[in-house]
Amino acid sequence: MKEYSSLSKEELIELQKKLNAEYEDAKGKGLKLNMARGLPGAEQLDMEADFFNTLNPNSNFKSDAGIDCRNYGELLGIQEARKLMADMMSISPDNVIVFGNSSLNIMYDTVCRSMILGVCGSTPWCKLDKVKFLCPVPGYDRHFAITEQFGIEMINIPMNEDGPDMDFIEEYIRDESVKGVFCVPMYSNPSGITYSDETVKRFAALKPVAKDFRVIWDNAYCVHHIKDKKDRLLNIFAEAEKNGTEDFFIEVTSTSKISFPGAGVSALAASDSNIASIKKRMSVQTIGYDKINQLRHAGYFVNADGVDAHMKKHAAILRPKFEIVLNAFEKNLGGKGIAEWTDPNGGYFISLDVLPGCAKRTVELCKNAGVTLTGAGATFPYGKDPLDRNIRIAPTFPSVDELKKAVEILCVCVELSALEKLLNK
Amino acid sequence: MKEYSSLSKEELIELQKKLNAEYEDAKGKGLKLNMARGLPGAEQLDMEADFFNTLNPNSNFKSDAGIDCRNYGELLGIQEARKLMADMMSISPDNVIVFGNSSLNIMYDTVCRSMILGVCGSTPWCKLDKVKFLCPVPGYDRHFAITEQFGIEMINIPMNEDGPDMDFIEEYIRDESVKGVFCVPMYSNPSGITYSDETVKRFAALKPVAKDFRVIWDNAYCVHHIKDKKDRLLNIFAEAEKNGTEDFFIEVTSTSKISFPGAGVSALAASDSNIASIKKRMSVQTIGYDKINQLRHAGYFVNADGVDAHMKKHAAILRPKFEIVLNAFEKNLGGKGIAEWTDPNGGYFISLDVLPGCAKRTVELCKNAGVTLTGAGATFPYGKDPLDRNIRIAPTFPSVDELKKAVEILCVCVELSALEKLLNK
Repeated sequence: MKEYSSLSKEELIELQKKLNAEYEDAKGKGLKLNMARGLPGAEQLDMEADFFNTLNPNSNFKSDAGIDCRNYGELLGIQEARKLMADMMSISPDNVIVFGNSSLNIMYDTVCRSMILGVCGSTPWCKLDKVKFLCPVPGYDRHFAITEQFGIEMINIPMNEDGPDMDFIEEYIRDESVKGVFCVPMYSNPSGITYSDETVKRFAALKPVAKDFRVIWDNAYCVHHIKDKKDRLLNIFAEAEKNGTEDFFIEVTSTSKISFPGAGVSALAASDSNIASIKKRMSVQTIGYDKINQLRHAGYFVNADGVDAHMKKHAAILRPKFEIVLNAFEKNLGGKGIAEWTDPNGGYFISLDVLPGCAKRTVELCKNAGVTLTGAGATFPYGKDPLDRNIRIAPTFPSVDELKKAVEILCVCVELSALEKLLNK
Repeated sequence: MKEYSSLSKEELIELQKKLNAEYEDAKGKGLKLNMARGLPGAEQLDMEADFFNTLNPNSNFKSDAGIDCRNYGELLGIQEARKLMADMMSISPDNVIVFGNSSLNIMYDTVCRSMILGVCGSTPWCKLDKVKFLCPVPGYDRHFAITEQFGIEMINIPMNEDGPDMDFIEEYIRDESVKGVFCVPMYSNPSGITYSDETVKRFAALKPVAKDFRVIWDNAYCVHHIKDKKDRLLNIFAEAEKNGTEDFFIEVTSTSKISFPGAGVSALAASDSNIASIKKRMSVQTIGYDKINQLRHAGYFVNADGVDAHMKKHAAILRPKFEIVLNAFEKNLGGKGIAEWTDPNGGYFISLDVLPGCAKRTVELCKNAGVTLTGAGATFPYGKDPLDRNIRIAPTFPSVDELKKAVEILCVCVELSALEKLLNK
């Protein structure tokens, strides 16, 4: 296969004609396919039809400690749910709080409370002239939406193959107005990479000028392996303890993509002093989260082994979907010099880089042919991909048949946008 | 029965001796009784043992509109849950958002977002020199905890028999720094009164100087009748529309004391423009609340009639408990001029006023005899009851037997603290 950049204008035009015909053909089919968001597919949701009917009324809905889960109380979550979530994050249950169904909500509240009340006694961020966050890119659009809503200035940090470029992070934290970093350290969204041991160790050794600096360690995909070959992430708190920096880290995770996005449980892990401070503030916000759902999850999964066994079933459904996309990319785009993509061992996404200046056009072409992708730019703060190059591919929601159709059209659109660019040079 | 104030010193000492003996006898029993919080009792929680196992897996967990409730999405709640909660508040489902299990959390977030982001485009309250809230007293301690956490100055507003003294409220809202009021308009916490038609109409006609003024209309007890004689509350939005003031009101309610405190659903009702503004902010905070629990509630209760039928079962359990307390008060305290109390038609509380300066002492005496009450002062901002007089009585949680014991001891303590005061005059 020849790289397109080495083709003559005539050859490019010939190719464009052929692809245009394919594109028009696809358009004519009136498809409605959605690869925009990291949603579990119907097969995954159907795996555990009995999940919601597993509570035994004869148990009287009591937790192991005898707490009636139907009544008020237990602000930090029932013990067996804290243990389950702690197990997933390899941390003590004493350092875990279990919330409702959304770890996004935990992160939002964490930033929101820092803005209005400060961090463990610091000046509230809203009282400062300037607050900045470091954002490894490409990253998760919903992270950036939080910082944007609160008027926090976002600074792009390039992602390497082993995590964010730590040279940049170590430099930026010498600025006291830099108050945090958003991270997805394992099977990151969207690139699917896992931070290397060295990256985690460098995070753990950070010495920010701002004492109210916090790393939001969004470990959403901590158990979300797809392949037999599993990535391994160093335990951030174990490393931080060696440096006395554990107060700088707020880890979150959830069962959204383990049990159900619409009815899971989420959790936060943090140091003793962070837990104490968060608890104090939470005690005014609520009397407690849904303990019956906590009981349901603890009863169903029991511990990390139970979760792992369950994740194998998800993987069996997801692996073929990732392969469909990767095989189509290889077959249609390989060797042409017009696209690069990741091949992750876990998580929910493939990150696709097209030719600079071609991401928006590719997404637009797809949309017009009935294939909805994540918006181009969404993986960057303010929705601005400086090179207009990155597209997040979410292969999990469509059925296998839909996915096959969608990815073929996507490849045509990648090629067409590349040809447009090469012909207009 | 003679009023104690007319008794001689000798008579008072004689009484004190007799009551001290009763008190010491009670103390000796080593009781542990709790009347501190408005928790449903075990009987109420046990009424619906099958509640959590009513989801039919054959329905595929779809909402009426075909939404898969197990997956992400539906930020404002599924339609049938919005309809159920709207039905309870007599408002259009379009003006209702369904949240997680805690209306306290809705109120907290409402104040928090106003602090940090402003109200529908206003200056964020945290940027202002001074923000004040009006607090009808006695009131709900968790309301006051929210405003206190955010440094909002609280101003006591006296409660009359038909609601807050509106003369005060109409006067205070001429101050632009007065940004809101906390209300429990029906079966209020703790006094159990329901705002009269005139009070509601005067609320609806408020013309505050601050355009970002908001009344938190906490309608927690909107369907919580105990007696056959039901209070009736005018619909605040219907009245507000007549005045064009609907943007000033944020109504909340929940099923915490309908289904289960630990696993219910909560809801907010507001004007179109408030809903639009809240939705925009929420979309950054979460992808959506637990829709399976929404589906469960909508399926179980269906509509306001279903809820009313269910509330009759609660009332049948609660009515005897309220009567135990009221009968004991009448028998032991009636005619002695040392206490007054409310006899509500619904809600969760009885408000007890002892002699000025005697509330803390009464609660202390109770505690030492094994009966935990809501802390004296809790029904006032900053925990400060200026007359040290009000005690909130929560008769719902103890069993009938426990309650009988607890209230007898409470009456002894009310008498003893009154005698201490009268003898030390």
